[in-house]
Amino acid sequence: MRPVNVAILGLGTVGGGTYDILKMNAELIEKRTGRQIRVTKVLDKAVDKCLAKGLTEDMIVDDPEKIFADQEIDIVVEALGGIQPSTDFMLRAMKAGKGVVTPNKAAVAANFDELKKTAEENGVGFRFEACVGGGIPALTAIMEALSGNEFTEVMGILNGTTNYILTKMTDLGLDYDEVLKDAQAKGFAEADPTADVEGIDVANKLSILMALCFDKYVKPSDIPTKGISHITMADIEAAKAKGCKIKLIAKAAVKDGKLEYSVAPMEIENSHPLAGVSNEFNAIYVTGNAVDEVMFYGKGAGALPTGSAIVGDIIAIAKIL
Amino acid sequence: MRPVNVAILGLGTVGGGTYDILKMNAELIEKRTGRQIRVTKVLDKAVDKCLAKGLTEDMIVDDPEKIFADQEIDIVVEALGGIQPSTDFMLRAMKAGKGVVTPNKAAVAANFDELKKTAEENGVGFRFEACVGGGIPALTAIMEALSGNEFTEVMGILNGTTNYILTKMTDLGLDYDEVLKDAQAKGFAEADPTADVEGIDVANKLSILMALCFDKYVKPSDIPTKGISHITMADIEAAKAKGCKIKLIAKAAVKDGKLEYSVAPMEIENSHPLAGVSNEFNAIYVTGNAVDEVMFYGKGAGALPTGSAIVGDIIAIAKIL
Repeated sequence: MRPVNVAILGLGTVGGGTYDILKMNAELIEKRTGRQIRVTKVLDKAVDKCLAKGLTEDMIVDDPEKIFADQEIDIVVEALGGIQPSTDFMLRAMKAGKGVVTPNKAAVAANFDELKKTAEENGVGFRFEACVGGGIPALTAIMEALSGNEFTEVMGILNGTTNYILTKMTDLGLDYDEVLKDAQAKGFAEADPTADVEGIDVANKLSILMALCFDKYVKPSDIPTKGISHITMADIEAAKAKGCKIKLIAKAAVKDGKLEYSVAPMEIENSHPLAGVSNEFNAIYVTGNAVDEVMFYGKGAGALPTGSAIVGDIIAIAKIL
Repeated sequence: MRPVNVAILGLGTVGGGTYDILKMNAELIEKRTGRQIRVTKVLDKAVDKCLAKGLTEDMIVDDPEKIFADQEIDIVVEALGGIQPSTDFMLRAMKAGKGVVTPNKAAVAANFDELKKTAEENGVGFRFEACVGGGIPALTAIMEALSGNEFTEVMGILNGTTNYILTKMTDLGLDYDEVLKDAQAKGFAEADPTADVEGIDVANKLSILMALCFDKYVKPSDIPTKGISHITMADIEAAKAKGCKIKLIAKAAVKDGKLEYSVAPMEIENSHPLAGVSNEFNAIYVTGNAVDEVMFYGKGAGALPTGSAIVGDIIAIAKIL
């Protein structure tokens, strides 16, 4: 069988991690899938960075049309971030008959229906495991191994920055501002942490989880969302006194036949598996009418963990090419 | 598309749970997969029990050849238990061109290579998610979403009976014998608990995990295996003093290029995610060179959780029919 050719749009942290895994584990992936999976083109303006990674000049393009028009390319990984032009690029790739893989939760949450429909209409694979929980293979499990279940609830700790901050506040008794500064210094929080600490990033992820679990698309901006910037040590102590930990929880549950959903800090009992999810780790906790409770735990960010999810998606699409 | 026809060998706890889920969630499964999945034949001697579940007499057979010879049957679920005749039945079904799904860890661990080879030779699906961790979709994740990883370690709490006993010893300060009696009374332990408490059941599961993670088949009887029947309250207290919990751990890890493996009670630090896996719950903790650490948690037994895994496997095979 001929090799599977992949193009990566954006060779930043996650795109670069994906490239590294495909190179590092190439032999093993070929052995497992029976096909060679190789990156043949990359869209990135930082030519020097790409060359330093071992790409040759002919692989690096600055015009995405060169990728969409390339008949040899089977799968496009969109790792540019942002809603546009990422969404348009994904739609263009699908219409050109290419499978699409993306870790871009903002774009997927904003345009879920259109992306899904366009993939179906063009008979191409569209996978986005890395959008929720980084390397944790929860979305694939929900869509495949657990697909015999009617889901009744999904809960998640879906943002590493906020979970790191809450963990340090709880364990070390430090104030929010102090921990945020420390997190920024360590690279666990961005200079402008708004999207993380106000729950916006988590709302994008919950929108995607709801679409998969309940076949119901809710715009992220329509999800009642509270962040953690108002959480004080008094809140943390009050929770502790009740045998609980405060966690930023994305939650959607069917109650009396109606889907209720929110992103908000919640008191989680210490005996609950989500209470043990500390620091930058993420977890997705799903309840189904057959499987009962199941939890997926791991690293929600980072070049290689997120790349692991993208490579898993590439392999899944390669299998049906 | 025509319906997917399933036969179940053995309508006991797990076979019955599978039947119940396919009935209970039929509409949802058809919507998700685009195909109706229905049970058309069952091998079981307890005709009255089958009729009470709503099967009609023409669906119930006492000769497995009637199932293998039925050209309409696409997938056979082997839920009889025991190594034989279950293995022969699975091989017969594969040779008759039918996909095979099984929760039978003893049979899969004993005959992994032959079952896998026969499925490949006959171009049929062979899936066994329910063999390890009941409803927890860990095997599918290892084989699919995480298949871009080189695995370096797999650890698991893979037996609900022993985890229940160790949890109660730890939390309530009760002796092994006392908790075992309580577990037997509650149905969490069998009248003859040997296979559970001596780690034999766990060794079967570790054999399957190693075959998938490391592409290396080790016979369960060749895995160094210690159970929990010798664990005393003094051991539990000594672990507690070190900030640890004793858990029966299946572990395989690559060390200096060599695969080391064992089943044994181990002291797990309280901060490790596996320490929080209590009572009858199971978990599989995998380390890969891309994803880093990831954990899967849920119910390792029971009619519906185990049935959930089987139905997931049926759907996966149905998709490629």
